[in-house]
Amino acid sequence: MVQRAAVVGLGLIGGSIGAALRQTGVSVHGFDTDPERAARARALGLVDEVLENIDAAVSNAEMVVIATPVLAVVDLLPRILTTATKAALIVDTASVKRPVTHSIDRLKRPVHALGGHPMAGKEQSGPEAADPALFRGRLFVFCPSANTTDQARDMARSLAAMLGSRPLFLDAEEHDRLVAASSHMPQLLSTALASYLDPESLAVAGPGLVDMTRLALSDTSMWRDIFVTNSDNVAAVTRGYIRRLEELIEIVDSQNIESIAQMMEAGRAAAESIRVASIP
Amino acid sequence: MVQRAAVVGLGLIGGSIGAALRQTGVSVHGFDTDPERAARARALGLVDEVLENIDAAVSNAEMVVIATPVLAVVDLLPRILTTATKAALIVDTASVKRPVTHSIDRLKRPVHALGGHPMAGKEQSGPEAADPALFRGRLFVFCPSANTTDQARDMARSLAAMLGSRPLFLDAEEHDRLVAASSHMPQLLSTALASYLDPESLAVAGPGLVDMTRLALSDTSMWRDIFVTNSDNVAAVTRGYIRRLEELIEIVDSQNIESIAQMMEAGRAAAESIRVASIP
Repeated sequence: MVQRAAVVGLGLIGGSIGAALRQTGVSVHGFDTDPERAARARALGLVDEVLENIDAAVSNAEMVVIATPVLAVVDLLPRILTTATKAALIVDTASVKRPVTHSIDRLKRPVHALGGHPMAGKEQSGPEAADPALFRGRLFVFCPSANTTDQARDMARSLAAMLGSRPLFLDAEEHDRLVAASSHMPQLLSTALASYLDPESLAVAGPGLVDMTRLALSDTSMWRDIFVTNSDNVAAVTRGYIRRLEELIEIVDSQNIESIAQMMEAGRAAAESIRVASIP
Repeated sequence: MVQRAAVVGLGLIGGSIGAALRQTGVSVHGFDTDPERAARARALGLVDEVLENIDAAVSNAEMVVIATPVLAVVDLLPRILTTATKAALIVDTASVKRPVTHSIDRLKRPVHALGGHPMAGKEQSGPEAADPALFRGRLFVFCPSANTTDQARDMARSLAAMLGSRPLFLDAEEHDRLVAASSHMPQLLSTALASYLDPESLAVAGPGLVDMTRLALSDTSMWRDIFVTNSDNVAAVTRGYIRRLEELIEIVDSQNIESIAQMMEAGRAAAESIRVASIP
């Protein structure tokens, strides 16, 4: 049984993990580069204690969760591998996994470290948005490196269980390709839609538009790192989307009522499959 | 004060209008081509009475609301203009307005008829999804024809007031261009996204994807008519969106962290403006 965990980065994801671990009886040390945000996370009861530096936060933990944007994960990982106890699990939560597993690959020795990506989130960010139930019923994807020990995989399964989520082990290449389609491209479509609309059309904005631009409100520094590090997959899959959209424009342009009805029925059936696949 | 109204088409919008009018003390006669759906609307208390044919439903009403897909509005309008009392307001609720105002234009005499479009909706359809509060705080756009009387405009304002919504008078050309951007294109983007995704990427589908494909669940027969009748505007504005999306792909492809951060900040600011403009 895990007794002490550390969470580095106390935003929505880190704060939610801290709160969920505390509910299972784990004592959680927290650290954030923004001391004010760390204090808010502590005041909200998401962590037991906030430490002034990262080394102090992770030194006694049996489990270290790095919940920062992906470029910071890659920066912090070597230092945390040095400071944390040898037996500790080290896992991150970023949405792109190749930079993390590559950085573990480069160590050339077995470590209890692997990449992680809980498939949960919301457009609000910061510790105030944290929720211990955020991961319940959701997938927690883990991407091992060749250097990841079997023990780390077992500890990762325990972490998922403590959060109420289902573990899924995927190759980092595969993960990054799949989430480019299912998560990163939808974000880009929402950002593009929000910034494309002429202010005059907002006079008649309705609930559908609000829905389709909700993702554009998401934390911008997290998404900046995601697009920088998964640019190849995001560009490729979004170019494919454009080709599909051009096909749909042709159908609309045709004014052929049967083709348009078929297009709508196919979209509706697909949207229903997405719900079956993704709602816990 | 209006005492008797008729609603033709008892789905989400017609049912919600019936329920809202009943709450203000108006007696509502309903009609639907599907007698089973009409019976459900009656059982749910959305209308006072269901009539077996459209002529009986509208004959004594002071206000007739045609809440059907737009091609059916154009079909029904001449008949309802003949059957309804001369003093009655006749208004529809479809999302495309040129076909309706053109059909009133062709009458070559003044009538108490105009196009209407309440800026409210949800992805569920049918009388079970009806809600008398659906229009509260929302815009109700009205598009007069050159044949529309001033009295019809006044009655339309009263209708909006009874639903708790704010009336806005727009030219039908202008309306159809604006809603192509703010409503019809977002629907097409959602339908395109749902039908584009490979089933394998659904293994890692998260809440963002569910958000972005919610519109694709909307009533397909309503949307079929919208795309058929507003194809020119939808195609033009969606081609513009594709050009914007191509610019964003270039930014992602560049892996330039500052340009990507700027792109995300611009999208977030725009999404916030959309909320200010559209949430009651």
